[in-house]
Amino acid sequence: MRLNPNMAATSPPPVMEARRWIDGVEFPADRPLINVSQAAPVDPPPAALREAMARFVLDDDETHLYGPVLGLPALRAEVASQWSVAYGGTVTPSQVAITSGCNQAFAAIIATLCAPGDEVIVPTPWYFNHKMWLDMGGITSVPLKAGEGLLPSVDAAAQLITSKTRAITLVSPNNPGGVEYPSDLLGAFYDLCKDKGIALIVDETYRDFDSRSGAPHDLFAREGWDGTLIQLYSFSKAYRLTGHRVGAVVASEARLAEAEKFLDTVTICPNQLGQRAALWGMKNLGDWLAEQRAEILARRAAIEQHFPKLAAKGWVLHGNGAYFAYVTHPFDEPSDKLAQRMVEEISVLCLPGTMFVPDDDPSGAKCLRIAFANIDADGIAELFERMETL
Amino acid sequence: MRLNPNMAATSPPPVMEARRWIDGVEFPADRPLINVSQAAPVDPPPAALREAMARFVLDDDETHLYGPVLGLPALRAEVASQWSVAYGGTVTPSQVAITSGCNQAFAAIIATLCAPGDEVIVPTPWYFNHKMWLDMGGITSVPLKAGEGLLPSVDAAAQLITSKTRAITLVSPNNPGGVEYPSDLLGAFYDLCKDKGIALIVDETYRDFDSRSGAPHDLFAREGWDGTLIQLYSFSKAYRLTGHRVGAVVASEARLAEAEKFLDTVTICPNQLGQRAALWGMKNLGDWLAEQRAEILARRAAIEQHFPKLAAKGWVLHGNGAYFAYVTHPFDEPSDKLAQRMVEEISVLCLPGTMFVPDDDPSGAKCLRIAFANIDADGIAELFERMETL
Repeated sequence: MRLNPNMAATSPPPVMEARRWIDGVEFPADRPLINVSQAAPVDPPPAALREAMARFVLDDDETHLYGPVLGLPALRAEVASQWSVAYGGTVTPSQVAITSGCNQAFAAIIATLCAPGDEVIVPTPWYFNHKMWLDMGGITSVPLKAGEGLLPSVDAAAQLITSKTRAITLVSPNNPGGVEYPSDLLGAFYDLCKDKGIALIVDETYRDFDSRSGAPHDLFAREGWDGTLIQLYSFSKAYRLTGHRVGAVVASEARLAEAEKFLDTVTICPNQLGQRAALWGMKNLGDWLAEQRAEILARRAAIEQHFPKLAAKGWVLHGNGAYFAYVTHPFDEPSDKLAQRMVEEISVLCLPGTMFVPDDDPSGAKCLRIAFANIDADGIAELFERMETL
Repeated sequence: MRLNPNMAATSPPPVMEARRWIDGVEFPADRPLINVSQAAPVDPPPAALREAMARFVLDDDETHLYGPVLGLPALRAEVASQWSVAYGGTVTPSQVAITSGCNQAFAAIIATLCAPGDEVIVPTPWYFNHKMWLDMGGITSVPLKAGEGLLPSVDAAAQLITSKTRAITLVSPNNPGGVEYPSDLLGAFYDLCKDKGIALIVDETYRDFDSRSGAPHDLFAREGWDGTLIQLYSFSKAYRLTGHRVGAVVASEARLAEAEKFLDTVTICPNQLGQRAALWGMKNLGDWLAEQRAEILARRAAIEQHFPKLAAKGWVLHGNGAYFAYVTHPFDEPSDKLAQRMVEEISVLCLPGTMFVPDDDPSGAKCLRIAFANIDADGIAELFERMETL
């Protein structure tokens, strides 16, 4: 049987490939695995949320039945309300849809925007699932090479726009780069997209761990924002709900009506327990989330604190934020080989830069992504001690 | 902003459209709504399963974390084991993947098979989400008009195969038609697909409610079945898990490796609680499921029993099985108008045939789908009494 050539040309899932590097490996008892490969909490949600979820399972029949394609109305309303306050703008419940994770939000939105042959501008290093989704749809990912401090240039983006361009996709705080895009930069991208009549997709999966106070941008406060802006969000990180698959997309009601076709056809509705858990978390875990953010920022500070020891050996720290540090290594070997050697020699699993850039971009071979969110300050100290021995 | 023209040409979700027909309608107290529109249980899972799910939520940390893209290994193994027995064939765990519902299984498989411009042969009346998914991907749905007793003809299908054909998609027991395809018919379709080097996709979402004893086909017993056959399944109906989104696909390991790219990119993994619930159900609810099947078959019998009263008024029963009766009405008005009149006049919501056939197929205007699974024998008697008054 023939294979869809677009699918055949799509890379396999990097995280699954990296998992295979540790399959069957026996790590020494005094040097257990430090897994900094996947951007996900490894702890379950707090006890109070788990107890609330158990009550939904036992007492709320609706938890087990189909719901509306675009999500639980109360959750859509809560997102709209909290966003309006947080961003100082106006977001209505009809501008919010709930999805089966943030990846699905991106997939659905691209499906509403792009036909095969269309183009989407994506800063590099990119989030590999974005690239994979565009590849399998026969849509061209146009790489926009990150400049100084891993920030993309609006002028460079403007040069890449053609009659086939449908969107620019940004991730801030950035995966894999770890940088927080300045409000002005996001504003300039918005102006460019509005001027050119294309969409600006901003994936804010890591917004809850932004180190800055106040709104990270003013886009929701702009008149008619939903003619240009499409925002993506994930409940997975904030409330530790990765296993439950709940994300969101904020966009115009008309675009969500198109996304509804995709969401209905692919999953019918987001899972009901995850939506109830996300809503409960939004309403009850504000203080807890503030503590989580402080802890992630402390881990980020530990990266800063320890990095000089590696810098002395030729390593470079390009970005450090959200869940990620993005670094250049000083070795002659390509990063995908180095990453496998790190598993063997120092029991560390991280993802190589080759997974985040086009094949012809030499920066991939030089870089590594360290997803530090799952290791505490002591673990980070230990990680750096091991990396020094490479 | 431009819209993907393939998406713009895709119909909106029929079930959501039908829901809008009852939005804000006040039904008389003595004539409450009978909703036979959606093919879904309206009761939650049995108490024992809910209690097991609550324990997973409280005690099993892994329930809340990401899992493998292709699903929980123990659930894949259980499906392989039960299928091998039920179908008298050989299915290995590596030939099973778990998906976020059965719709996603179809979407992922089509993404591995078809590029834009390819063709898939789909018997009519078809399952609308199949048609919608093909439409939004720029893939041509080639209608294969059902013949006598709503069964598709293998010879007619053979005439429709071109160099662009990638698959034939069958649903048995059929949605919306309610007919169970004979084993020989499925075998003949398999032979045709194998001979032509295309895929045979068989959606067996309703397999647990088949009225026949024994295996519904012998395809898994055939040597090298996974070179041709792709089977889809849903845990939603059997264990009342619609709100949790768990389905499965059984196919070759190589094809599942391609589907893994889609599943990773769209949802990362199926939700973990739903998978644990499905596994618990498969291991513990065999007797309960047998009772559920008996109840559905009793409802089907009630349809048979009451239908002569409608037949006397010119109605025709074409198919009656799985969760569905597919009927022709005797009125001059098109079915989509009739369906809305039924809401007003007799407080009954069902889906019109227009939702299940191409626009140029006149049978759509004549037919209705009655999803009877949610109403007991008394409810079915009441439904028929009301329909007689139309």
